[in-house]
Amino acid sequence: MDFFFNPKGIAVIGATDNPLKGGYHIVNNILGGYTGKVYPVNPKYDSILGLPCYPDIASIPDDFDLAIYFIPATFLPETIERCATKKVKGIIIESAGFAEVGEEGAELQAECLGLATKHQIRLWGPNCMGLLDGHTKNVFSFMYSDEWKTLMTPGKASFVVQSGMLSAGFLMMILDRGGMNISKMCSVGNKCDVNETELLEYLARDPHTDVIGLYLESLVDPRRFMEISRATEKPIIVLKSGRSPSGAKAAMSHTASLAGNDAITNNALKQAGVITVHDFTEMTDFMRGFSMTKGCRNSGGTAIVSFSGGGGIVTADFLHDADLPLAPLSAETLSAIKEVFPPWMEPANPVDVWPAVERNGIETVYNSVVDAIMNDDKVDSLIIHLFSGSMDTGMLEPLAGMKDRLEKPVIAWLIGTGDNFRIARKEIEELGIPVFEEMGRGVSFLAAAKKHYLGKSWSDRNIP
Amino acid sequence: MDFFFNPKGIAVIGATDNPLKGGYHIVNNILGGYTGKVYPVNPKYDSILGLPCYPDIASIPDDFDLAIYFIPATFLPETIERCATKKVKGIIIESAGFAEVGEEGAELQAECLGLATKHQIRLWGPNCMGLLDGHTKNVFSFMYSDEWKTLMTPGKASFVVQSGMLSAGFLMMILDRGGMNISKMCSVGNKCDVNETELLEYLARDPHTDVIGLYLESLVDPRRFMEISRATEKPIIVLKSGRSPSGAKAAMSHTASLAGNDAITNNALKQAGVITVHDFTEMTDFMRGFSMTKGCRNSGGTAIVSFSGGGGIVTADFLHDADLPLAPLSAETLSAIKEVFPPWMEPANPVDVWPAVERNGIETVYNSVVDAIMNDDKVDSLIIHLFSGSMDTGMLEPLAGMKDRLEKPVIAWLIGTGDNFRIARKEIEELGIPVFEEMGRGVSFLAAAKKHYLGKSWSDRNIP
Repeated sequence: MDFFFNPKGIAVIGATDNPLKGGYHIVNNILGGYTGKVYPVNPKYDSILGLPCYPDIASIPDDFDLAIYFIPATFLPETIERCATKKVKGIIIESAGFAEVGEEGAELQAECLGLATKHQIRLWGPNCMGLLDGHTKNVFSFMYSDEWKTLMTPGKASFVVQSGMLSAGFLMMILDRGGMNISKMCSVGNKCDVNETELLEYLARDPHTDVIGLYLESLVDPRRFMEISRATEKPIIVLKSGRSPSGAKAAMSHTASLAGNDAITNNALKQAGVITVHDFTEMTDFMRGFSMTKGCRNSGGTAIVSFSGGGGIVTADFLHDADLPLAPLSAETLSAIKEVFPPWMEPANPVDVWPAVERNGIETVYNSVVDAIMNDDKVDSLIIHLFSGSMDTGMLEPLAGMKDRLEKPVIAWLIGTGDNFRIARKEIEELGIPVFEEMGRGVSFLAAAKKHYLGKSWSDRNIP
Repeated sequence: MDFFFNPKGIAVIGATDNPLKGGYHIVNNILGGYTGKVYPVNPKYDSILGLPCYPDIASIPDDFDLAIYFIPATFLPETIERCATKKVKGIIIESAGFAEVGEEGAELQAECLGLATKHQIRLWGPNCMGLLDGHTKNVFSFMYSDEWKTLMTPGKASFVVQSGMLSAGFLMMILDRGGMNISKMCSVGNKCDVNETELLEYLARDPHTDVIGLYLESLVDPRRFMEISRATEKPIIVLKSGRSPSGAKAAMSHTASLAGNDAITNNALKQAGVITVHDFTEMTDFMRGFSMTKGCRNSGGTAIVSFSGGGGIVTADFLHDADLPLAPLSAETLSAIKEVFPPWMEPANPVDVWPAVERNGIETVYNSVVDAIMNDDKVDSLIIHLFSGSMDTGMLEPLAGMKDRLEKPVIAWLIGTGDNFRIARKEIEELGIPVFEEMGRGVSFLAAAKKHYLGKSWSDRNIP
């Protein structure tokens, strides 16, 4: 599998120097990060983006690991034959026109797979956006935007996504939102050969990946998928579409996927410790949350520190809905809080610090309250409410330290507007505290995190 | 009630010229819009913000309708007595320190209510942020930000919000997000006298209000509330917090609210045609959606027009979850779509227009497809998927016209990033098509809209 991510030499079948075409962007994206040899192939050009361009594969002077295919579907069989002569290990087929367009396309796809298998060449796709890697900056995709060059920072979150168009839009939204650093992003399309189960295994073993998200329209080799899921400690988050009869029908014509029986699949996934989500936002929320969370040690309850009575009430309601208990604060914690509270106010969880802040200033109050709460044995997680623009996020540094040391998840609900809001969100997430714009989503993440970290014992597990 | 919104003369008890204090912002906000007479009251100053300042109420030369109270709670009884001599009709009490701080505060609050009733003065609050009006630009609140001056455009959405801090943050987020134009925003706090039921009736009769949202920790006079809800055609959207035992306990100490039995309340609300929501985002999504939706005439099914197969599948799943049928497209519609589709592609709902767009250009394809679908009798609503930055939103103009004329709700799921995204969202919403960043939320709104418009017959109803 590694030759897809770190190939020795790449040929681009269908390279062009027309910036309105995908064949240009594939070369341009490769040159933005990849440091090995690149061979554009197109009989119309002598050079593309400063590289010598070859009229055909036979003319390429060296062997190479990877070909990226972006010409009409019909030429794929002969391309596979020619790649075999260059000892190619894998082809990423980003063109459409295969199983997703009907019977004829399906036959062509099957023929290609047969040929590739014969020559021991692995096929990625077809009908996909390729892959990118936040660490190596290898971007093997026709996607037009090169915003990834400025926005993509290396991190621990890896994705496998089945839909093409969506995966590009989705990725750009993740990068634009910030706060999630990327390891690998794989768009697999029709997945005629390389599938999500193989990629799951690769990512489960990948030292650069801590959390794995998959958007799937179908599940190939579910038995093996569950086996890997059960064995890895890494959170695996799955958005399975084509759940409904009409959705499954649409999936059939989209990536020629048989969506399978949803109820059975979902049940099996959950039993294997997979975290299932309902939409893209929930997936990215969970991915971001898990990538900033080290663990959850004891199983007491959640504390809430709020600047608004209303916010505390809404949050308590959401915790109740999610079956997460409010932590009963110990006598020591309560008396520590009482020291900074106005005399008329009896501390309780949710802890509304606003009246105390008006009296004693934000830093003093916040740090004593949060310190007492985080060190309370009955508290296993903390939700903080923040208003952007009304605080220096530096005051959260002690909390950020405690959170990882004590293995107690901390999440923030941030309210605010405009640049102030975006700056505060960035600063808070750089401290490792995930920010949710909606409390309901924050609580959903917390429920998933507690379930993941407390729900099963992970000792001495290896992928079989 | 109207003297709170359009008073003849306002005294500000506790005005100051210190811009770090709320008493300054009350005067400053009033001067930003209100055109009547303003009387700052504070013995420390001769003038505030260019207005003569009075040492006490007795010194004010005229009678006036409204007093805004922002000094410590304890002075309220004597203030009420003095207001009576000036024929004051209402007092907005924005100070805290009443029922929400315990028994003593509750006694003070009860005493004040007794006095006010005796003098026929209505009390608004205490422990609240006051009110603002998008049409008159009357802002009677201590809120610090004056961004409202640039962001608030007059519209049809009115809110009643119980929590103070939250309502300011909430309002600024709504204004910053854009797309929702405001009629009236009422923060009612402890609501010792004026309550949400009275305001609901006022707003139900208000010609500037088309849709009403309420964030409530408790419900005063539920019988009357249901009566008004049943009688008005305007969508009423309620977020009731304190639903859980722990939330209800927190609500008690916050605005001294008895949250009541949630299950009974929610049931009664639904039976009265009230739309209940779970969080602030859902509330604002619904408010925005309803304020751009004229109605829903027949009850067929929903069509989806997408630029991505994956998006269509996910959306079909969400529709299925919400029990909203996919529209079966008529033979005429299908053949109209087939004319712009590539030959290999059989049109079906969800309609993935991407392959057709690649072939025939976006405007031609979009307009023929959307026109055929909107005029199909079996289609009662339409979901469109859009990518910002890849289209001119002007192409949606014909659709915007059809939507209101045919009374078929149209919603957009927009994917994109940065300024491009925000500009496209603004342009689409200016055409009257509400934009959702998450398909799940869009479908929830659509379900609520169909239920509201098709669920009951509204003919010849009047508020009893």
